[in-house]
Amino acid sequence: MNAEIICVGTELLLGDILNTNAQFLSRELAELGISVLHQHVIGDNVQRLRDLVREAKERSELLVFSGGLGPTEDDLTKETVAEAFGDTLQFDEEEWQKIVDFFARTNRRPTPNNRKQAMVPVKGRKLPNAHGTAPGAWFEDENGHCAVLMPGVPREMKAMWAEQIRPRLEAGQNCTIRSRTLRVLGGESSIASKVGELFDSENPTVAIYCKVGESEIRVTAREPDEPSAEAACDAAVARLRQRLGDNAYDVDVPGLEYTVVRILREQGLHASTAESCTGGLIAEKLTNVPGSSEVFGYGFVTYAEAAKTALLGVDPALIERFNVVSGPVAAAMALGAQRASGAELAVGITGIAGPGGALPGKPVGTVYLAGTDGRSGKVWVMRLTLGGYRERSIIRTRAALYALDMLRRMALGVDVPDAVLTTPDCLDQPEALDF
Amino acid sequence: MNAEIICVGTELLLGDILNTNAQFLSRELAELGISVLHQHVIGDNVQRLRDLVREAKERSELLVFSGGLGPTEDDLTKETVAEAFGDTLQFDEEEWQKIVDFFARTNRRPTPNNRKQAMVPVKGRKLPNAHGTAPGAWFEDENGHCAVLMPGVPREMKAMWAEQIRPRLEAGQNCTIRSRTLRVLGGESSIASKVGELFDSENPTVAIYCKVGESEIRVTAREPDEPSAEAACDAAVARLRQRLGDNAYDVDVPGLEYTVVRILREQGLHASTAESCTGGLIAEKLTNVPGSSEVFGYGFVTYAEAAKTALLGVDPALIERFNVVSGPVAAAMALGAQRASGAELAVGITGIAGPGGALPGKPVGTVYLAGTDGRSGKVWVMRLTLGGYRERSIIRTRAALYALDMLRRMALGVDVPDAVLTTPDCLDQPEALDF
Repeated sequence: MNAEIICVGTELLLGDILNTNAQFLSRELAELGISVLHQHVIGDNVQRLRDLVREAKERSELLVFSGGLGPTEDDLTKETVAEAFGDTLQFDEEEWQKIVDFFARTNRRPTPNNRKQAMVPVKGRKLPNAHGTAPGAWFEDENGHCAVLMPGVPREMKAMWAEQIRPRLEAGQNCTIRSRTLRVLGGESSIASKVGELFDSENPTVAIYCKVGESEIRVTAREPDEPSAEAACDAAVARLRQRLGDNAYDVDVPGLEYTVVRILREQGLHASTAESCTGGLIAEKLTNVPGSSEVFGYGFVTYAEAAKTALLGVDPALIERFNVVSGPVAAAMALGAQRASGAELAVGITGIAGPGGALPGKPVGTVYLAGTDGRSGKVWVMRLTLGGYRERSIIRTRAALYALDMLRRMALGVDVPDAVLTTPDCLDQPEALDF
Repeated sequence: MNAEIICVGTELLLGDILNTNAQFLSRELAELGISVLHQHVIGDNVQRLRDLVREAKERSELLVFSGGLGPTEDDLTKETVAEAFGDTLQFDEEEWQKIVDFFARTNRRPTPNNRKQAMVPVKGRKLPNAHGTAPGAWFEDENGHCAVLMPGVPREMKAMWAEQIRPRLEAGQNCTIRSRTLRVLGGESSIASKVGELFDSENPTVAIYCKVGESEIRVTAREPDEPSAEAACDAAVARLRQRLGDNAYDVDVPGLEYTVVRILREQGLHASTAESCTGGLIAEKLTNVPGSSEVFGYGFVTYAEAAKTALLGVDPALIERFNVVSGPVAAAMALGAQRASGAELAVGITGIAGPGGALPGKPVGTVYLAGTDGRSGKVWVMRLTLGGYRERSIIRTRAALYALDMLRRMALGVDVPDAVLTTPDCLDQPEALDF
């Protein structure tokens, strides 16, 4: 089946807002196995809309609209599409009452214009809007070509799509479609070198999306029923995890900090952070996870050298001897945070986020990260070279990701790749950490 | 003049990436006074591309392409557009040499396919690409209709647009166009009530864009020359600032933290942060500004009650009596951070970011913010009600914005609206802060 996505709205044509609806709908349609031939954005011009619908309808069996359902006189999308699909509109008392009630809840009254929003297809069907005033509409012509009209507000559109439209399209395909998203540390090319040939699989499909310092691998299975679709997803994820090892850190989570908080909670552990170059980013990420107060109590943003000494007990002589951006100082910060907080696990991080601040042999992007595990007495120290990413915020984001991963690995008791393993008395011979 | 934007790329049709190019180009064209009639996204299908170009060319004088200039055989955008504009392509030795050099710098060799990228218009002109391999192209037909082809990579596209295309379009209009972006705390409706009628101005134009907790007002002037365009922008910004007062905090900055760091630097001041509900977000924002180490040295993320006592000296009896989410505790946090850091200015923040944790009389979104100015001996305490925003991250972002604004107002020595003004000995009578 072919589809076209048509977003209606002057604010899109003016660039006032970013068209996230088109991406959402494209991903969803791809997952359903429906090919999107064309995405369109147009304004409230009836003649151009009429021409577009006529053309698109010839090329494609499904037209998916968002926007154009507003109460103003310019909003003629519903009327125009109805005409093209040989349908008409009628006033719907039930929808009108919902609009009246919606306004009453926010202490307002609908205007006569809002009555337009209560007009619904005569032959097609209305799509109730649980999150806003404008109902959507579903039109179908004698050849089985369909047009689906949804509101432009992303929250309303996504809810209508998930609750009313996607299930109907799935049913039309006589199959159940399920997805899982595996999150993996590392870039696309390193991942592709390990699992690249799985991307050719037709069912389940496997697609990769690059993020900063990590990638999402989305597995989508089409099967006759839900249990077999779920099972096919699980099997594909298991195959991927086997090949990718512990860089594949979780399934269906928004980010690594969610995994870290979950593991810490499961294990009854606590973490503390001592941050210089990341300036609070690691703490901010951890505390953005609901429930993180069970596992995180103390974060130190020691941006100044004096703060490292005052709050974390870092010896000024150590800073003097090795420089503040160094392995020994990172280790002293982690050990200091652990001592001051009483947490089992702590990380310390110091580096040069740029654009200024480069040192001889330590260019922008040089970051030292240390982690300490009070249970095992293990201390890990590593040097990161993140200068290739240029932007300050990207260097900081990648550095924070490494720190979160160190917490995860320490909590799980697995090896930290590329880090030097030492002990809490490492500061007796700090030169060993000066790499 | 009318224009259409045509983005070519299967990854857009699959929803793998978000189409930020279309928004960028729409805003730029709107600023140039060029109406965008239609945005399109299509794949690498020659017949559909040919049909689209023929149609769009009839409707619009300017077609702006991004993407489709890659080295693979599917990428036939340049060939197809050349044909539609009555032009042909020829191999360009200079562009080829640049491609060869580009590969050499990254230790790779171009493939024979890359030669395609060195093909340039015979009648039209090539547009050199300073940031990548694929040059762009400019075609023009006998009616003066133009097509501009740019790479799809946003960084390459934006540079080519700014350096080569926008200046030519501006020159064609015989005017100079300049913009300023004024940043204003508060939502669109409160701003519109003060300056709404200025949005109707035709030159300079004034447009508003909503952000979390603040808005951007973009002023764009079209004048015969650069000095008068700059002057017209400045005059419009001055008018806006006069009406909006000190909620309008800066011009052409990425965010409030940049303004805070600039003001602190100008005044030789230092700031410290004591964060509970924002969990490091305020520190993270401040330290993301290059040069912030001059003004920020100490940040405390005291997520646990014990941390507030251990690091900031908050009396446990105060927490016991008023609850940890309270005005007295926020004030004690700010005063503790100031004492521990030696900074002139400090903020303390404690609240309920949700989704859980609501207390009787203190729903999710209740946040207490305190600021202390060691120079004047002023202490400000306020209660924020941010629960209407539901999402945890939005509550935190808005709370951080209020804290940054308090730092700005204290540094400037201006009033903090809606805050109670008190003194550093306020904790002798903490019940006055229990509101």
